[in-house]
Amino acid sequence: MLNRVRIVLVETSHPGNIGAAARAMNNMCLEQLVLVSPKHFPSEEATARASGADDLLARAPVCDSLDAALKGCRLIIGTSARERTVSSPLLNPRACAAKIIEESAVGEVALVFGRESSGLTNEELDRCNFLVQIPTNSAYSSLNLGAAVQVLSYEIYLAWLEGRETAPGPLREVATAEMMEGFHGHLAQALEDIGFANPRQSDKLLRRLRSLFHRARPDVDELNILRGILSAAQGRKSMRR
Amino acid sequence: MLNRVRIVLVETSHPGNIGAAARAMNNMCLEQLVLVSPKHFPSEEATARASGADDLLARAPVCDSLDAALKGCRLIIGTSARERTVSSPLLNPRACAAKIIEESAVGEVALVFGRESSGLTNEELDRCNFLVQIPTNSAYSSLNLGAAVQVLSYEIYLAWLEGRETAPGPLREVATAEMMEGFHGHLAQALEDIGFANPRQSDKLLRRLRSLFHRARPDVDELNILRGILSAAQGRKSMRR
Repeated sequence: MLNRVRIVLVETSHPGNIGAAARAMNNMCLEQLVLVSPKHFPSEEATARASGADDLLARAPVCDSLDAALKGCRLIIGTSARERTVSSPLLNPRACAAKIIEESAVGEVALVFGRESSGLTNEELDRCNFLVQIPTNSAYSSLNLGAAVQVLSYEIYLAWLEGRETAPGPLREVATAEMMEGFHGHLAQALEDIGFANPRQSDKLLRRLRSLFHRARPDVDELNILRGILSAAQGRKSMRR
Repeated sequence: MLNRVRIVLVETSHPGNIGAAARAMNNMCLEQLVLVSPKHFPSEEATARASGADDLLARAPVCDSLDAALKGCRLIIGTSARERTVSSPLLNPRACAAKIIEESAVGEVALVFGRESSGLTNEELDRCNFLVQIPTNSAYSSLNLGAAVQVLSYEIYLAWLEGRETAPGPLREVATAEMMEGFHGHLAQALEDIGFANPRQSDKLLRRLRSLFHRARPDVDELNILRGILSAAQGRKSMRR
């Protein structure tokens, strides 16, 4: 599915952003980068910023029209930093990603990013089934192009992960209730032995400590360490006798 | 709430990444950038990449230790690109963002990013209550630093937008980072004093205990109780002398 998702960059000015986009895609298991009339490409700066994603960059076709870049796509989503009068429905990134994963199960889909300075033209937006907008600070809404590709690639990858049937991850082994009770008994005795707690006044104290260790949920090893510490503290006392 | 979220960058090598982080934060309404021993700063490249976020960049304090950067924080989350043996609980970005928004309602919180090449050291990760990992391509997991800040800032902003619709519940007061450090120092000394820990062999032990108390997140009263217990255990020893 992820190999049917095209990231299309239209008339990118800064080659560094093309490299950053390739790296972001590679991190998120996306493979198809398509460039429409980039200002400078190929470029050393793009390759440097792509880091380990230079293969992906080298494979990227360069098209001279958006039409060529979108060939064969069943779903086209355009990115937009601001409200548009265009009538394509607006999605948030999460809904956009879910849609892309849903539809890439059956065919090619494209996510289109415009120019750094001015985004996509109305004519280009008209080619899109949906628009997607990344929520931002209204006073400073312009994301860097590479950063926008990163956020949407991340959401697409998450949607893909969620879509797979996943077994729940392993849980930490924690000490059993009876081990915890044994520990709390030991703790109470040790506090008395080292002269910290007066057994008649210590109920409230012991409840505080109980609550603290319940939150920590120690595993068996940790409980053994704690009991070793208590014994060491007690041992000093018995040595004194 | 968003103004109580610190983004802490530790020993960043490339000033362009500092600028990209500032821009990403500004896009997502985050205001507090804190730099720990950056290789080159201030820097023209950082300012250029910050784009409209140069104010935020100019305000960023430069600290010479992680401790200084974390001063006053009630919650510390570290970023990690790979599995660690460290046992701090691992969050995904969405859960991390929800936690940050929840806790920033009552105090300062920090999200810590490590070096481009090697991330955070185990010692630095030990300072964290939680770790967060951005899901990635397992064959190519290393996100650009600016891109990682972008993804997590975006999730934090989304969580904040979502949280505006629901009233937050009351949160426990927890001890600050520096109080926790004071406690861990006292604990190490007490373990030595009672003859439990050989200082040369105790690194692993102390890390286990650190992880346990990070999970428990004691409040100030509880921390005072724990330190009282340590002092009582130590006192017995000095009485013997």
